[in-house]
Amino acid sequence: MKKHILVIPGDGIGPEVTTWGKAVLEQIGTEYGHKFTFDEALMGHVAIEATGNPLPDETLTKAKACDAILFGAVGHAKYDNDPSAKVRPEQGLLKIRKELGLYANLRPIMLFDELLDASSLKPEVLRGTDILFFRELTGDVYFGEKKRSDDRNTASDLMIYHRYEVERIATKAFEAARSRNKRLCSVDKANVLEASRLWREVVQELAQQYPDVETEHMFIDNAAMQLVKNPKKFDVVLTANLFGDILTDEASQIAGSMGMLASASIGDGTGFFEPIHGSAHDIAGQNKANPLASILSVALMLEISFGLKEEAQRITSAIDQTLKDGYRTGDIADIHTEKSKILGTDAMGQKVLE
Amino acid sequence: MKKHILVIPGDGIGPEVTTWGKAVLEQIGTEYGHKFTFDEALMGHVAIEATGNPLPDETLTKAKACDAILFGAVGHAKYDNDPSAKVRPEQGLLKIRKELGLYANLRPIMLFDELLDASSLKPEVLRGTDILFFRELTGDVYFGEKKRSDDRNTASDLMIYHRYEVERIATKAFEAARSRNKRLCSVDKANVLEASRLWREVVQELAQQYPDVETEHMFIDNAAMQLVKNPKKFDVVLTANLFGDILTDEASQIAGSMGMLASASIGDGTGFFEPIHGSAHDIAGQNKANPLASILSVALMLEISFGLKEEAQRITSAIDQTLKDGYRTGDIADIHTEKSKILGTDAMGQKVLE
Ligand SMILES: CC(C)[C@H](C(=O)O)[C@@H](O)C(=O)O
Ligand SMILES: CC(C)[C@H](C(=O)O)[C@@H](O)C(=O)O
Repeated sequence: MKKHILVIPGDGIGPEVTTWGKAVLEQIGTEYGHKFTFDEALMGHVAIEATGNPLPDETLTKAKACDAILFGAVGHAKYDNDPSAKVRPEQGLLKIRKELGLYANLRPIMLFDELLDASSLKPEVLRGTDILFFRELTGDVYFGEKKRSDDRNTASDLMIYHRYEVERIATKAFEAARSRNKRLCSVDKANVLEASRLWREVVQELAQQYPDVETEHMFIDNAAMQLVKNPKKFDVVLTANLFGDILTDEASQIAGSMGMLASASIGDGTGFFEPIHGSAHDIAGQNKANPLASILSVALMLEISFGLKEEAQRITSAIDQTLKDGYRTGDIADIHTEKSKILGTDAMGQKVLE
Repeated sequence: MKKHILVIPGDGIGPEVTTWGKAVLEQIGTEYGHKFTFDEALMGHVAIEATGNPLPDETLTKAKACDAILFGAVGHAKYDNDPSAKVRPEQGLLKIRKELGLYANLRPIMLFDELLDASSLKPEVLRGTDILFFRELTGDVYFGEKKRSDDRNTASDLMIYHRYEVERIATKAFEAARSRNKRLCSVDKANVLEASRLWREVVQELAQQYPDVETEHMFIDNAAMQLVKNPKKFDVVLTANLFGDILTDEASQIAGSMGMLASASIGDGTGFFEPIHGSAHDIAGQNKANPLASILSVALMLEISFGLKEEAQRITSAIDQTLKDGYRTGDIADIHTEKSKILGTDAMGQKVLE
């Protein structure tokens, strides 16, 4: 197989972890005889510094031309604490999602047995958890019209959904549920929001085409609670952009650490693969970041964009083995971890390669 | 002291638990020589059934005239699964919040030592947690304009904030932080939302008047995660209506169960006190619901609306003692609970009275 991959390392720890995602991809290529070629492009704060634009045209052109994208992270505290900044790193990410039609963000919450103790949740609450989130990614209050009054004292964002937006992601989620444990939980706030009422209507209608899938509707406040109380009860979770942003970060604690979670954004064309952790500037450049989420993003790419299941499985097993051997980065270490087995980014990446 | 209290039991388990809140209030009156008088009014599904209106005029008139309101819950599954319902129980609650100017919802997350094991979080993660949430309650996407296109295929809600709305609740939160552990965490999504950018601007400005309070800003996705990962790090949490709805329900797991959390809604006039749990129709009428949140709501009423600290303390101690004696309702029982000490609503209420 011949594939061309665009690497967008981005900001903060993005470059450090993406290096290892790429290295693993190269090794898989060698082992299985695939020809992976690579290109690199700018996005986020680094792109603003270099070009003034968080998503330079060149990046977008390359993104549209490649077979899949491996992304790191964007963001910088400098903009976070300046609410009046006009140009922001996140705009690059939002724009590429929109331009590539990446309307479905898949976030699997996988549990590595070895990490059960790294979570703040009790092991008996966690054990057996296996959730696949479908977060809508190109609609909602993220992309609705933003306004600021002339006196700057009133600010608004439009939370808006169109039927076709709900339909296309819900269809993907139902299909996934069918191939998994046949349970789908759609999360909304239909008791208060009109956009959620449309969401629920559409999901209810589609559910009739999937009688083999047990469909449930849950309010977001309740879902945020149930996810901590009893994560095992979920199989496929389908939700809107904003609610998905919140729930999936919350759910990262189930996997022990954000540093363990990968995500796939798919839709009309090229797939986009990224760790769910952010740029984490506080630890950037210190060789401390956990590269496993980037490596798991590569596994998702192989499976989802290229249909290479065996190769993807090979990566997950390598990570599993590395964890079984006792190796940990700081974020997933616990009191039982031997000091000598707490590794930096590079050493951890190297262990997985081996 | 002479006070007139309006009791609004509402739907589902509302009436069952509110009975015990009221009973405790009466007993405090007798013990401390206060004259509490009571009236009752309809809201929610029961009000729709009786009058067609989830918040009848009579209820609103009584609400404006009393000294404090003890509320149960509203909601009914019948409306939840009918996205096109025009009249809904929740409208009553939203309208009374708006009409009474209840812009600040205070939700203390208190930990009873005896319940450490009832949570899905590890006791060592929980121990020492003491959070006071300030959730804005009369603005945001809850009250912004709702629209549905004529073809019904597009739906929207306006997420909107005005400077004065942020200022008044932020001021209350800063004052509270000052009298507690002097840390305030304001939660928003300023990297994406304009309403959040205004929110952050205002909080940043106000922070300058509270140099003794350590102010932090956190994105909602990160906050949802940190709350599970390390709840101890929070003192006062200030946030918007929607984010507060989600975070406080999530945080209820810290207290072992939703059945343990009370909230106070305050603002321009009469205070409004309620358990944070909902109507829970699945267990309604079965004498199973936990009355402690309603009883704790009464403690909040005594302290916040009437300034009766000692009386409030008396209630908290009585609950503490009841838990120490080993009594539990089903929701907070764990494997160590003696079967004979698992009580129904009434028996639990009675124990606290004793
Ligand atoms: C960086 C930010 C804009 C982004 C989001 O909110 O979508 C991030 O939190 C994510 O979840 O990918
Ligand atoms: C019943 C519902 C409208 C309400 C809300 O979302 O505010 C409830 O969840 C709450 O938190 O009080």
